[in-house]
Amino acid sequence: MSDIGLPPVSERVRALHARMTLDEKLAQLVGYWVDQGDEVVAPMAGEMVTSTKYEDATAHGIGHLTRVYGTRPVEPVERAAWLWAEQRRLRDETRLGIPAIVHEECLTGLAAWKAATFPTPLGWGASFDPELVEEMGRLIGGSMRQLGIHQGLAPVLDVIRDPRWGRVDECIAEDPYVVGTIGTAYVRGLQDAGIHATLKHFVGYSASQAGRNHAPVHAGPRELADVLLPPFEMAVRDGGVRSVMNSYAEIDGVPVAASEELLTGLLRERWGFDGVVVSDYFSVAFLHTMHAVAADLGEAAALALAAGIDVELPTGDAFTGPLAEAVRDGAVDAALIDRAVLRVLAEKEELGLLDERFDDAPTEIDLDSAAHRALARKLATESIVLLANDGVLPLAPRAGARIAVVGPNADSAEALMGCYSFVNHVLAHHPEVPLGLELPSLAEALRAELPDASIDVVAGCDVSGADDRGIPDAVAAARAADVAIVVVGDRAGLFGRGTVGEGNDVDDLELPGIQRRLVEEVVATGTPTVMVVLSGRPYAIGWALSGADDPAAVLQAFFPGEEGGAALAGIISGREAPSGRLPVSLPRAAGAQPYSYLHPILGGPSEITSADSSPTLPFGHGLTYTSFEHTRLSAPAESATGSDLAVAVEVRNTGPRSGVDVVQLYARDVYASVTRPVAQLVGYARVALEPGEQAVVEFSVPSARLSFTDRRGVRVVEPGDVELWVGASCDQRETEATVRLTGAVHEVTAADGRLVSITVTDAVRA
Amino acid sequence: MSDIGLPPVSERVRALHARMTLDEKLAQLVGYWVDQGDEVVAPMAGEMVTSTKYEDATAHGIGHLTRVYGTRPVEPVERAAWLWAEQRRLRDETRLGIPAIVHEECLTGLAAWKAATFPTPLGWGASFDPELVEEMGRLIGGSMRQLGIHQGLAPVLDVIRDPRWGRVDECIAEDPYVVGTIGTAYVRGLQDAGIHATLKHFVGYSASQAGRNHAPVHAGPRELADVLLPPFEMAVRDGGVRSVMNSYAEIDGVPVAASEELLTGLLRERWGFDGVVVSDYFSVAFLHTMHAVAADLGEAAALALAAGIDVELPTGDAFTGPLAEAVRDGAVDAALIDRAVLRVLAEKEELGLLDERFDDAPTEIDLDSAAHRALARKLATESIVLLANDGVLPLAPRAGARIAVVGPNADSAEALMGCYSFVNHVLAHHPEVPLGLELPSLAEALRAELPDASIDVVAGCDVSGADDRGIPDAVAAARAADVAIVVVGDRAGLFGRGTVGEGNDVDDLELPGIQRRLVEEVVATGTPTVMVVLSGRPYAIGWALSGADDPAAVLQAFFPGEEGGAALAGIISGREAPSGRLPVSLPRAAGAQPYSYLHPILGGPSEITSADSSPTLPFGHGLTYTSFEHTRLSAPAESATGSDLAVAVEVRNTGPRSGVDVVQLYARDVYASVTRPVAQLVGYARVALEPGEQAVVEFSVPSARLSFTDRRGVRVVEPGDVELWVGASCDQRETEATVRLTGAVHEVTAADGRLVSITVTDAVRA
Repeated sequence: MSDIGLPPVSERVRALHARMTLDEKLAQLVGYWVDQGDEVVAPMAGEMVTSTKYEDATAHGIGHLTRVYGTRPVEPVERAAWLWAEQRRLRDETRLGIPAIVHEECLTGLAAWKAATFPTPLGWGASFDPELVEEMGRLIGGSMRQLGIHQGLAPVLDVIRDPRWGRVDECIAEDPYVVGTIGTAYVRGLQDAGIHATLKHFVGYSASQAGRNHAPVHAGPRELADVLLPPFEMAVRDGGVRSVMNSYAEIDGVPVAASEELLTGLLRERWGFDGVVVSDYFSVAFLHTMHAVAADLGEAAALALAAGIDVELPTGDAFTGPLAEAVRDGAVDAALIDRAVLRVLAEKEELGLLDERFDDAPTEIDLDSAAHRALARKLATESIVLLANDGVLPLAPRAGARIAVVGPNADSAEALMGCYSFVNHVLAHHPEVPLGLELPSLAEALRAELPDASIDVVAGCDVSGADDRGIPDAVAAARAADVAIVVVGDRAGLFGRGTVGEGNDVDDLELPGIQRRLVEEVVATGTPTVMVVLSGRPYAIGWALSGADDPAAVLQAFFPGEEGGAALAGIISGREAPSGRLPVSLPRAAGAQPYSYLHPILGGPSEITSADSSPTLPFGHGLTYTSFEHTRLSAPAESATGSDLAVAVEVRNTGPRSGVDVVQLYARDVYASVTRPVAQLVGYARVALEPGEQAVVEFSVPSARLSFTDRRGVRVVEPGDVELWVGASCDQRETEATVRLTGAVHEVTAADGRLVSITVTDAVRA
Repeated sequence: MSDIGLPPVSERVRALHARMTLDEKLAQLVGYWVDQGDEVVAPMAGEMVTSTKYEDATAHGIGHLTRVYGTRPVEPVERAAWLWAEQRRLRDETRLGIPAIVHEECLTGLAAWKAATFPTPLGWGASFDPELVEEMGRLIGGSMRQLGIHQGLAPVLDVIRDPRWGRVDECIAEDPYVVGTIGTAYVRGLQDAGIHATLKHFVGYSASQAGRNHAPVHAGPRELADVLLPPFEMAVRDGGVRSVMNSYAEIDGVPVAASEELLTGLLRERWGFDGVVVSDYFSVAFLHTMHAVAADLGEAAALALAAGIDVELPTGDAFTGPLAEAVRDGAVDAALIDRAVLRVLAEKEELGLLDERFDDAPTEIDLDSAAHRALARKLATESIVLLANDGVLPLAPRAGARIAVVGPNADSAEALMGCYSFVNHVLAHHPEVPLGLELPSLAEALRAELPDASIDVVAGCDVSGADDRGIPDAVAAARAADVAIVVVGDRAGLFGRGTVGEGNDVDDLELPGIQRRLVEEVVATGTPTVMVVLSGRPYAIGWALSGADDPAAVLQAFFPGEEGGAALAGIISGREAPSGRLPVSLPRAAGAQPYSYLHPILGGPSEITSADSSPTLPFGHGLTYTSFEHTRLSAPAESATGSDLAVAVEVRNTGPRSGVDVVQLYARDVYASVTRPVAQLVGYARVALEPGEQAVVEFSVPSARLSFTDRRGVRVVEPGDVELWVGASCDQRETEATVRLTGAVHEVTAADGRLVSITVTDAVRA
């Protein structure tokens, strides 16, 4: 009946599958959201809140249990006892005895009550430290494993294309290589702990029109191949990820959830992915309700299944009744069901679920151990970016110094957390429930950090809104102080609850509400002022970075997590040195978007347009408490198009303090058969150096890192000159070299696997 | 040597070509800009200003003479005498005796001193009157023909995608059907007069990133095929246009000037275009300098020639020396030169140039006759859009009434003219030269229109800048008046000279400078205020359209040309009734761009995003001094996918005055295999009705108007429901019907030529 290739599976899975009825098969292809209630996951999916009772939905078994821990604040051990019992029930009381995969959100840590919350992905990007992110993934996975969870819905590998989009706070960077290397590190860490990672959102979501959530994506095949897809390819080929989630997006009119070309042709046939594709929540039904490419849920199910979506999440709105009907009507090839079921059964076998006894429910659990806290602290510290400093930082206040800590984010635990943290994602619906973990605000952390200082805390205003009645108190506090720390930025939340996060897109990149005015009035007191931005997107804060009336120093922290307050306090005091770098351009204005540092000549400033889109601060920028000098970039004069490039550069700490440099190697293909970016990161390395100390950083740049999709649609490396440089950001050429690539046009194949590897770097102390 | 198909040409052209040397051939492929001086046509082309002397450049003949009349203010008859002599010289003193094609800009009328200046294309779009635009084209062409000009560089068929772009003032509409029908009408008119029209800018220019001039275009093949290309196809297939100009754009990494797929595969092979493709000024060289897809000018020439550019304009920077060298080196197939030369020679033969005697230079000429003025007045009147009116309009002031006419555009002739008018394009460089034609400002026109009124004129402020010293005088004038007319908007110019026009892109869609404040302060006087916007782009003037403190009425005029002042005065006084409709959405904010009314469900407002992109006023909106009711939309219940749809609707003038309605028929394909817009204009008709009068408007909608590009890349009409409605704008369903398209998927072919026809409409008086 069908030429659909069925996946290779074990004899045991094949035999299990052979026994299944259609209802039993379909049950494996869907999730059930156990106690979905008032949490608004997707407003337009409101009508989808399932009405099927749990007992009915699981009568034939169930593929996934959806967010067992992550939907409401539940005591982890109590919930685990329930879960273990449910799994035993599935094993013992359904005909085939197949337990469920349990999946949870885990972007900034397991999204469950009392679980550690790490910095948001923009913070991982700012750290430029894949090793530490991998370690974080391992800790997150360990907690999940203890709770009987099998799959985590992270990381987000969307390459940032427009800061107006609310979900930027879930993304790592605007550079595909940074997203790919750090995202792959997260995958490795999580999967090392036995948890299947899930790549989100394959693909295109971040490039939506005007930065609007779910809006159409205007992108051609070359932008898709060269900018949006590489991180996913790295995580599939190099990271061995076990699951992929489709994006809600439509690209040039075709919803990804209905794209066989992407979900099967590219992902499985070209990249060799052999895991399970799960739908983003409600996105199968959205083919009917939001994209209107299916006239009903049965058509939506048929399209998604044929494209390559194996499991419908969070519940079986389309893949149960409507799909069953379509199969019975002959509208859907039953082999497509079998293909998906076999994949799910193989995943369950791989996870050990088919042999699991569920007799070892945990009785004690610590989801926020000292190890979690230490790693959260280290990553938060590495993620903070010093944007400007006239010397006021580090503070080193005299005993008894008066410090005014003002601003709506000064004394807020929530201000440290992203949209997918449990605190902002779920606890926001349960104001009566305590946070469940220690979340010292920056003000609290400063009191601990500077016990001899006199610290006065005033909010001044809210994050959003126009109520300015608190400003005079804030100004008075600043005026009376030796130094003012004004803490502004975002409140993360979902769908109109907050200033950033899912559904919270913006027209304007000024700080929300009247926070700019608060800063300006505090600065106007004349008291030296440190501005701290706790945000989920980069804002157009050029006004705070130039001119005589600026804050004396500006720190940018992208929701640094549970230890973010302490990390910031440590940098402010000088106990730690700042080492983060901007993983995104700091934008000029909302009206200058979209913008990417990866622009060809004509996407940057030019005489041909009066409206400069160039950013306020460039990708890669970040100051330290010392200074670094980069010299003697060495590279071969010539290199074959198919060979790796050996590049070395010297970095020296030329300042008075120890510090960490992020050595950034950029490249530009000067002339090519299609337009190419004027700068592209091809390697990076964190290097810690004492004053006067020097290191040589050696990069082995895979030749394929310089590849792109040519006019035939083939990924190639072309002969010709490539400029290389190292500097303090993408637009600073401190030391440079030119390599002439020689030989024929090199077509990159899977054998050039090193495109997808993390660049090998070595810091050799001189 | 080559498999390049040479174009079919006459025996005479073939014989002429056979005699040509390489130098003589290349000379036919380039223009020479006779007295190019300080006019800044393209800043990044500064180094391209030719240094070749005229005598040397024309020694072997010359393909084009560039802007003989349009570069400096020259007395037309004197310049004609020079031109006729030069053509005789080419005929008599070059070996082959081939005269030059003379081309000029002619977007809003011939861009020459003393020539009539009509409304800008946005005004044509607002008129929804292709017949009148065709008549305008015929008048423009007649003037050009008298002056010995052969080719006009118009119309611009770029579909508006982002109002931040400065060249929006050269575009017709954000709807491809309106652009196509009105643009094709212009082509017909111009070519009827014997002038070759040139379609600009094939293709994609308007969709540049962030609305920045020349910035990369992010668009996939479906958006290209279904939105950006249709107007060009209509003008080629239905309008029989004789020339096409490439766009500067790169689309998804491939510059159009180097795209054989577009310039040859699509344009010639699929659409059957057999005219000449000319390069946009300097765009061959830009392949080297701006797109970096060519390492030098020779490579640039080779790429452009192979892609299908026949003639390099404005001068032979790449197609002479560098191309000759590439041919001699064997890097370029000489057959490509022959192909282009044969096309140019065939064009010269078609234009009669090979037989022209040049013994009839004009001795008297009127480029701004009464016929020109009458048509300019009629089109300007039809183009003005009444956005809001609480009843203050029409004014009908009592004798002796005091009217304050304030604002920077109140008494400005330049404020009536677009960027490609001679006044703003060229005369701006020659402040000592008089305008050369009557250009009464709105203030002057109001004095003539209302001779019994006492009119006080105060600028108040400049169009741009922050100087507010004039505001008190404007406020005082308004306070002392019975009614205030505040005239704001743009000043068109090029590259930083002006607020809109080529190179004048913006971050912000507020009115430039402090004009909003001027309006608000005038309104605050309590004097009833009419706001008139004279602009080249739609601005985010929502603040002026809602709330109690708004102007009492708002008129939008898109640079209405030499009779624009009188046309506005006539509408203000009530001598004429407004009948224009918005050809673009009136935007919400710069940070909400890009936006198009042609969005699928997910490009519009939704619960899934906090940032609403929906416009302040919708596409198609426009008030009148009367009211219209649309009823009884009739359409067949079923129709085959390959058949035309017969649709009829009744329109009645239900108000107290005569008026003109623009009946707008919209459609929506409810479910399709790719996402489709929630509204799409499929027909329109201007209908003049007396009070109480009724008409039936019959549309024959070609089935192919509902076609789109499916996932295979094939243009199809799919079976399924199509909703149709008529209303006062795209989002008002006053009367509606649903048609079920039946039968198989219909693949649209050239035989379905009526896709490219202007919809047949009949207004039958009841």
